Amino acid sequence: MLDYETNTYTYIIADSNTKEAVIIDPVYEMATRDAKLIQELGLTVKYFLDTHVHADHITGSSELKEILGMWEIWVGENNKWITHNDLFLKDGEVLKIWDIEITVLETAGHTGGCVSYLIDNMVFTGDLIFVRGSGRTDFQSGSNENMYKNVHEKIYTLPDTTLIYPWHDYNGNMASTVAEEKQFNPRLKEENSFEDFETIMKNLKLPYPKKLEASLPANMKCGHRCG
Amino acid sequence: MLDYETNTYTYIIADSNTKEAVIIDPVYEMATRDAKLIQELGLTVKYFLDTHVHADHITGSSELKEILGMWEIWVGENNKWITHNDLFLKDGEVLKIWDIEITVLETAGHTGGCVSYLIDNMVFTGDLIFVRGSGRTDFQSGSNENMYKNVHEKIYTLPDTTLIYPWHDYNGNMASTVAEEKQFNPRLKEENSFEDFETIMKNLKLPYPKKLEASLPANMKCGHRCG
Repeated sequence: MLDYETNTYTYIIADSNTKEAVIIDPVYEMATRDAKLIQELGLTVKYFLDTHVHADHITGSSELKEILGMWEIWVGENNKWITHNDLFLKDGEVLKIWDIEITVLETAGHTGGCVSYLIDNMVFTGDLIFVRGSGRTDFQSGSNENMYKNVHEKIYTLPDTTLIYPWHDYNGNMASTVAEEKQFNPRLKEENSFEDFETIMKNLKLPYPKKLEASLPANMKCGHRCG
Repeated sequence: MLDYETNTYTYIIADSNTKEAVIIDPVYEMATRDAKLIQELGLTVKYFLDTHVHADHITGSSELKEILGMWEIWVGENNKWITHNDLFLKDGEVLKIWDIEITVLETAGHTGGCVSYLIDNMVFTGDLIFVRGSGRTDFQSGSNENMYKNVHEKIYTLPDTTLIYPWHDYNGNMASTVAEEKQFNPRLKEENSFEDFETIMKNLKLPYPKKLEASLPANMKCGHRCG
C-alpha cells in the first residue's frame, strides 16, 4: 500500500490459513484505508512493526490499534525513549505468525534505532536502503558508518535473489533485489568504499524534512496525538 | 513501476532464464526510467503490450522502441484505426516468452478496443477493473454493457485467487484478487445487477480527462509524436 503524499509504502503480511497478520510501517493518514482492508480480508493483526521513528510522517500504529482493537506495537530496542509501544525488539529475535518467521535485523544508519524485518526471501528495510538509493543520515543519530556497515553485513550477506522492499520510493519503483543493489545502487554498490559512500552522503545537501516538527513528537509516542 | 503524476502502473514481466520480457502499458514520461531498468537487468523485450488507447497519458511504446531497438508493438484488434503498431491481437490468442504464456482477453468496456493479459495466476486488466473500482465508460466507445459482461464473463470466471493488477490506482493499492473484487468492488461486486452497475456509472459525474487532447492523437500512433 502506498501513501502518495509522502511516497511511503506500508506492508501487510498475512498467513492465508490462520488469517494472522503483521503490518509494517502504517501511515497515520492511511489508517482508515488500512483498517478497512484488514477487516475486509478478515485478518487478525498480531504485531504492528515499525522500522524506525519516522521524521516525515506520523505512524498509524496507535490509530490502527484503536480502530482494530488490542494488538501489540513492537519497535527496535534502540528506541528506548519511545512510549506507548508494547515491547522492544532485539537483533536476531524471531517473531512468528503461524509458520511465517519474521527475523529482526538491527540496521541503524538512517536513525540510531532502525531495524529491518526479514521474512522468507523478502527484507523490509525501512529507510536503510531504497531502490537505487538510501535513507538520509543527517539527523536522529543517523550515521554513515552504521549505514554502510549494516547494508554490507546484514543485507548484502542475504542471498542475491532476496527481494528488498523499501519504505520510500520517489521514482515509482516498488522493490529490488540484493543482487541489483549490490551492482547498481549509486551510493551503496558493492564496489564503493566507505570513503566513496561518505563523500556522496556529505554532498547530498538535502532539504529539511517537510513534516519533522509534527512527526517526531507524535512518533515518539507511536502515533498517540495526546497525553 | 508507478508514474506518480497519472497514478499509472507499468509492468515488466521477464523470464529469469532467457531474460526475455514483455512490458505492459509503459508511460511516455517514464520511458527513460524503464529503459534503464531493462538495460540494467539485461532483458530483451520481445513484445510491447498496450491494454488500450489511453486518454490520460501518452504511451511510452514508441519511445522505448527507439531507445531499446527493434521489438514488436501489439495492441487489441478492435483498435484498427491505430498506426505504428506492428500487429493486432485477437481474443484468446497466446503469446509466449520462453515458457511463460500470455493469453489475450478481449475486454471492451472502458474503450471499445481494450484487452487484458492473463499470465499464470495474474491478470493485467488495464482500465477494465481496478482495486475496488473500474475505468470510466463515457468516451472512446466505452460501454457499461461491455464492461459488466466482460468483468463477469472474462475476469470473474478466473480462479478466485487470481491476482488482479490494474492500470491505475488512486488510493495506494497495488493489486487485488478475483475473490476480493467479487465481494467488495462497490461498482462490480457479484451481487450487483447490470442495472445497479449502470446507475452507479451514470451518477459518477467525472471531470474531463486531464490529458485527453494530447494523449489520444499521440496514442493512435503508439506514442509517435510526429508524422
